[in-house]
Amino acid sequence: MSRADIERAAERFERDYAHFIRRTPLWKLPGKALGVANEEVWLKLEHLQTSGSFKARGMLNRLLSNIIPASGVIVASGGNAGIATAAAARELGVKCEVFVPTVCSPAKQQKLRELGAQVVVIGAVYADALEACLTRQKQTGALLTHAYDQAEVVAGAGTVAKEIEEQGGGLPDAVLVSVGGGGLIAGIASWIEDRARVVALEPELAPTLHRARKAGKPVDVDVSGVAADSLGAKRVGTLAWDITQRWVKESHLLTDAQIRTAQLKLWKDFKLAVEPAAAAPIAALRAGVAGDAKRVCLVICGANLDPATLA
Amino acid sequence: MSRADIERAAERFERDYAHFIRRTPLWKLPGKALGVANEEVWLKLEHLQTSGSFKARGMLNRLLSNIIPASGVIVASGGNAGIATAAAARELGVKCEVFVPTVCSPAKQQKLRELGAQVVVIGAVYADALEACLTRQKQTGALLTHAYDQAEVVAGAGTVAKEIEEQGGGLPDAVLVSVGGGGLIAGIASWIEDRARVVALEPELAPTLHRARKAGKPVDVDVSGVAADSLGAKRVGTLAWDITQRWVKESHLLTDAQIRTAQLKLWKDFKLAVEPAAAAPIAALRAGVAGDAKRVCLVICGANLDPATLA
Repeated sequence: MSRADIERAAERFERDYAHFIRRTPLWKLPGKALGVANEEVWLKLEHLQTSGSFKARGMLNRLLSNIIPASGVIVASGGNAGIATAAAARELGVKCEVFVPTVCSPAKQQKLRELGAQVVVIGAVYADALEACLTRQKQTGALLTHAYDQAEVVAGAGTVAKEIEEQGGGLPDAVLVSVGGGGLIAGIASWIEDRARVVALEPELAPTLHRARKAGKPVDVDVSGVAADSLGAKRVGTLAWDITQRWVKESHLLTDAQIRTAQLKLWKDFKLAVEPAAAAPIAALRAGVAGDAKRVCLVICGANLDPATLA
Repeated sequence: MSRADIERAAERFERDYAHFIRRTPLWKLPGKALGVANEEVWLKLEHLQTSGSFKARGMLNRLLSNIIPASGVIVASGGNAGIATAAAARELGVKCEVFVPTVCSPAKQQKLRELGAQVVVIGAVYADALEACLTRQKQTGALLTHAYDQAEVVAGAGTVAKEIEEQGGGLPDAVLVSVGGGGLIAGIASWIEDRARVVALEPELAPTLHRARKAGKPVDVDVSGVAADSLGAKRVGTLAWDITQRWVKESHLLTDAQIRTAQLKLWKDFKLAVEPAAAAPIAALRAGVAGDAKRVCLVICGANLDPATLA
């Protein structure tokens, strides 16, 4: 994983897939518009990405970087990674199997089917669906995508940071990023390295990176809370661990109440309909996490939510 | 109303009110991303404006252009114009009275109160609330704002077009704009003049401009349908009439079904939560209204909706 990998992914996206991987807007606002003293706040509106989250970048890059067998691609995920894999597979015209546990809502299963995926509902919890997925993968030889712990997936996510730098006319002083399995922050930190502060944000109830930093290595954690849907990885990825250990100096936890308040504020005052994970950077900004950074970029990472929850 | 008026409004906004009047993103996408043959589609995300619609521009400009008496400002509107007037009054720290009919939903009344407005609920329909508002205005001398038919309001709206030209690095070939009373299209056409096609869009069930063009003069029309909430003016404004007669060559009608389909598509595929009026340009684009324009700009004008209606 190097900056060159990210550059290669970005080139591919721009040359052949500009209709699929969108150059999402970077919205610059005076800090005062958000009630903070920082001079500028940049909102990277990556929730407007195809598939409703940044994950389409990583999944398309994974698919483009490998030979895809006739059996297509396979993934275990009822969330953003599954949706992004299905969307990328459809774009490339290859088969896609998605394994989800029975707790995956009918609405999400329907969404996956609309994207042309074969949905296999199996097991009570995610681990069961994953096990079935891996067994099936061995039988079919389909290309497996992982939600965050594959180099091509991390490199794809890193193109977000490259865009921020280009659109912003340079890097901001700090970038605030939500962490689940760590694929997004790993990509962003790989691009930025030590040229700006990259700040990791997690819910108190899903602290994979925070706990790993305390333990000195990735450890399993219990996950729950408002953002578990998209930040609910049980353990930070090995790639994310190595990369954040090198480049990320700050890791902060947020309460569910802070996240939910920020989510509602984004809708009410800015008409941005985003999932809780995507609101965490606003919550952190309001809590003062950016410190005296003049220019702060918040990565708004996803919008796969039931809009009725904003009413 | 001239381009100089629009320039003056924009200067004021940028110099002193950049935290209030937001420079909303211009999102450039390949036409293919929206399934059309036009080379580029530019989405002006003006629904992210303060107050949830472009109307904050006009209202703030109206308030800044006049001496505001101690009795403050006054308006008759339970919709976007009322919300924008209340928001602008709060920004300037002046009193605001908003007259609404009893059909105005409790949620909208609540929103106006949250913005610090004194809400007067009176009469069964809008005309009754307007009459009471005008009577009250004569008593108090408060500054009256009109939803679309005041020069400062039109000039404020015109700053949207100035931004599009700046952000786009020039004008697109066509701009697609929804019309209610016509304030937005009047402002946009005043800025663009004959340098690009400015295309008027209305619901079949609220055809104020279309009917006026047939009659050769503004006439009252019955309004209803999915977008009546924000495009439900009964008659096109006199300013809008004069300006569109001069600069706008095309006026198209859309069915409610087309508008609603576009609104749902914007949410599902682009995660933009917008009100029906704001989806009309997408509906028109999909219907081929832009013709062979290479670069088409769609003005996404508002997001004051109940998000549950997108579920």
